[in-house]
Amino acid sequence: MVDDTLVISKLKEKAQRVFTLIKNGSPPYLEIPVRTLSNTIWDEKAKMLRLGDRKATRKFFDVGEARRFMQTLLVMSVIAQARREGDYPTIRDIYYTAKHTITYQDHEGKTQRENTFDEQSESDEVIEDIEVMTGLFREEMGVMFDAKGRIVGNMLVKSKEHTIDLSKLGVGAYAIPPNVNDIEIVKVEADYVLVVEKGAIFERLNNEEFWKKNNCILVTGKGQPDRGTRRMIRRLWEEFGLPVYILTDADPYGFYIYSVYKYGSISLSYESERLAVPEAKFLGVTISDIYTYRIPKRYIIKATERDLKRAQELMNYKWFQADIWKKELQLFLERQEKVEIEAFSGFGLKFLTETYIPEKIRKKKYIA
Amino acid sequence: MVDDTLVISKLKEKAQRVFTLIKNGSPPYLEIPVRTLSNTIWDEKAKMLRLGDRKATRKFFDVGEARRFMQTLLVMSVIAQARREGDYPTIRDIYYTAKHTITYQDHEGKTQRENTFDEQSESDEVIEDIEVMTGLFREEMGVMFDAKGRIVGNMLVKSKEHTIDLSKLGVGAYAIPPNVNDIEIVKVEADYVLVVEKGAIFERLNNEEFWKKNNCILVTGKGQPDRGTRRMIRRLWEEFGLPVYILTDADPYGFYIYSVYKYGSISLSYESERLAVPEAKFLGVTISDIYTYRIPKRYIIKATERDLKRAQELMNYKWFQADIWKKELQLFLERQEKVEIEAFSGFGLKFLTETYIPEKIRKKKYIA
Repeated sequence: MVDDTLVISKLKEKAQRVFTLIKNGSPPYLEIPVRTLSNTIWDEKAKMLRLGDRKATRKFFDVGEARRFMQTLLVMSVIAQARREGDYPTIRDIYYTAKHTITYQDHEGKTQRENTFDEQSESDEVIEDIEVMTGLFREEMGVMFDAKGRIVGNMLVKSKEHTIDLSKLGVGAYAIPPNVNDIEIVKVEADYVLVVEKGAIFERLNNEEFWKKNNCILVTGKGQPDRGTRRMIRRLWEEFGLPVYILTDADPYGFYIYSVYKYGSISLSYESERLAVPEAKFLGVTISDIYTYRIPKRYIIKATERDLKRAQELMNYKWFQADIWKKELQLFLERQEKVEIEAFSGFGLKFLTETYIPEKIRKKKYIA
Repeated sequence: MVDDTLVISKLKEKAQRVFTLIKNGSPPYLEIPVRTLSNTIWDEKAKMLRLGDRKATRKFFDVGEARRFMQTLLVMSVIAQARREGDYPTIRDIYYTAKHTITYQDHEGKTQRENTFDEQSESDEVIEDIEVMTGLFREEMGVMFDAKGRIVGNMLVKSKEHTIDLSKLGVGAYAIPPNVNDIEIVKVEADYVLVVEKGAIFERLNNEEFWKKNNCILVTGKGQPDRGTRRMIRRLWEEFGLPVYILTDADPYGFYIYSVYKYGSISLSYESERLAVPEAKFLGVTISDIYTYRIPKRYIIKATERDLKRAQELMNYKWFQADIWKKELQLFLERQEKVEIEAFSGFGLKFLTETYIPEKIRKKKYIA
């Protein structure tokens, strides 16, 4: 469960500092780690994206910062109150709860009205500020969001006193919640974790009991994964030492999704240490697979301008500088061709599950 | 489980007819119910959208129909083979499996090449044709797709020999699969089904154990629902007589989502009889709620051009002709304002769960 006492005490501590400053007659401010790209560091040794050490001082007595200062304290108080009352607001609930209109008289005595928030993006940003400031993820503070992940396999989890056997869910699966720390992973009996980009492929592999036949844990994050899915995979790797293999389409978007699982994302680099899986392996589909497996021309899709631009961007990322990735991206830019995982069905419906995946793992033909 | 024998025999029967025609020297054709808007009927008595009786003859000896005729037989054979071999292809797998290049010599002796399919939309359409032709849904034929739904509550289901207690999933939930007919609903102990449009609201209500406190089944289809989610809700209503309440944002998109749960959708009207819940009730948020509950101006969002256009469309649908809906849509077009469910958080985080929802149900203040 969310540790209400911890959340409240962390928020209180930050608020207390502001209160003390005010009491002492000093200008109040908050100190918040900077979440910009320039403060995002590629940690070569740990193999992940990290937030740098730079901090910003958010001052109340600064016309440019007063609004954001006030917004931060406001959202902190909404979160603290939710913890006191056992509520689990969504990020949008927080926006509406914190949004109100302040009426005041300006220095000329004129009545002015101003909204505390005009857009949800403002409160979302502030929630992220509070995350880096307290070192607690929003989900650890009981803040909810839409979660997409699904998982099945030979493992036992425990949550709210209930033990759930993820190998006994029939054709269904376990829907991964926002806050995976509310779940205890009791036991895992599997050789590896297979992460598939696409939800439909997950349903197929689950119906075919791929995870049972191959003794693996099957997960999907449905495209760009949410934090819950990433945290779950991270924990399977961290707590149980399972190898993690990622399977996506052969295109720059698939590659980027893989890199988010492995290294973290630029916008949320402060999360990497608890969400990234630096040892995750890219099983495929690679661009060279298109030619190695001689995928017939009719299954190959022409790259779009957007694909090419994305590939160029990846080439500039420090975490895509390995020779093998340079080669892959170069090949993509040269041939301007991509394929979907499902293209393998052209070789028969069992090719993906009985040849491609097992072979890639057995022969270690992945990108490590 | 998918009834392989049934699927194969239904497909075989259709194919057999074509074969007999050929053997007798008659021009081969397939008879397929027409899935156009003009053959979509609003069944006032049954309160659902239905497919009319019109059928089209798809002839092989017709230049305009030969391609689609061939595509239909091709996809039928892919599905039949998957059933014989226990495969669960996704709709995209079917596209790739059925796609190949035919090389032939035309009447002038020139070599020609043609793809059996150029776009996935072609095979998706054909799959729908096969659904109406056989009376079997794609998921009943073992065809997979991305499924989004989540469900929790006091109920027991059984699938693949396992009994799953949907009240013992902790902070997680049961991920609804594409084919809900693979699940037996063993026992339900709940007063009603609450369907929430938004995934984030589902996570919130699940964390707060709303379903436990209010003795209901909680479901989300995450926006426009997929067939699995709809089928699950339909069965809870049909097999267990549970009232179904739908909760969406107060805007034309929310209203349309409600109407899909209740009456079915235009494009898939042949599904209504097994997916629609004609007695489903719209709990809210209505446009009049904005004014009844005096939602403060700052939470109200200005309608976009698209919203207004969508509302106009709804006004023309036969299933939105009830006086109460006319009034709601008229009010929307007049005031040009909408709100999100989360706006109620402005009244405190407990307002939605402890006041709005229970009051609407108790006082029957819903749209039936």
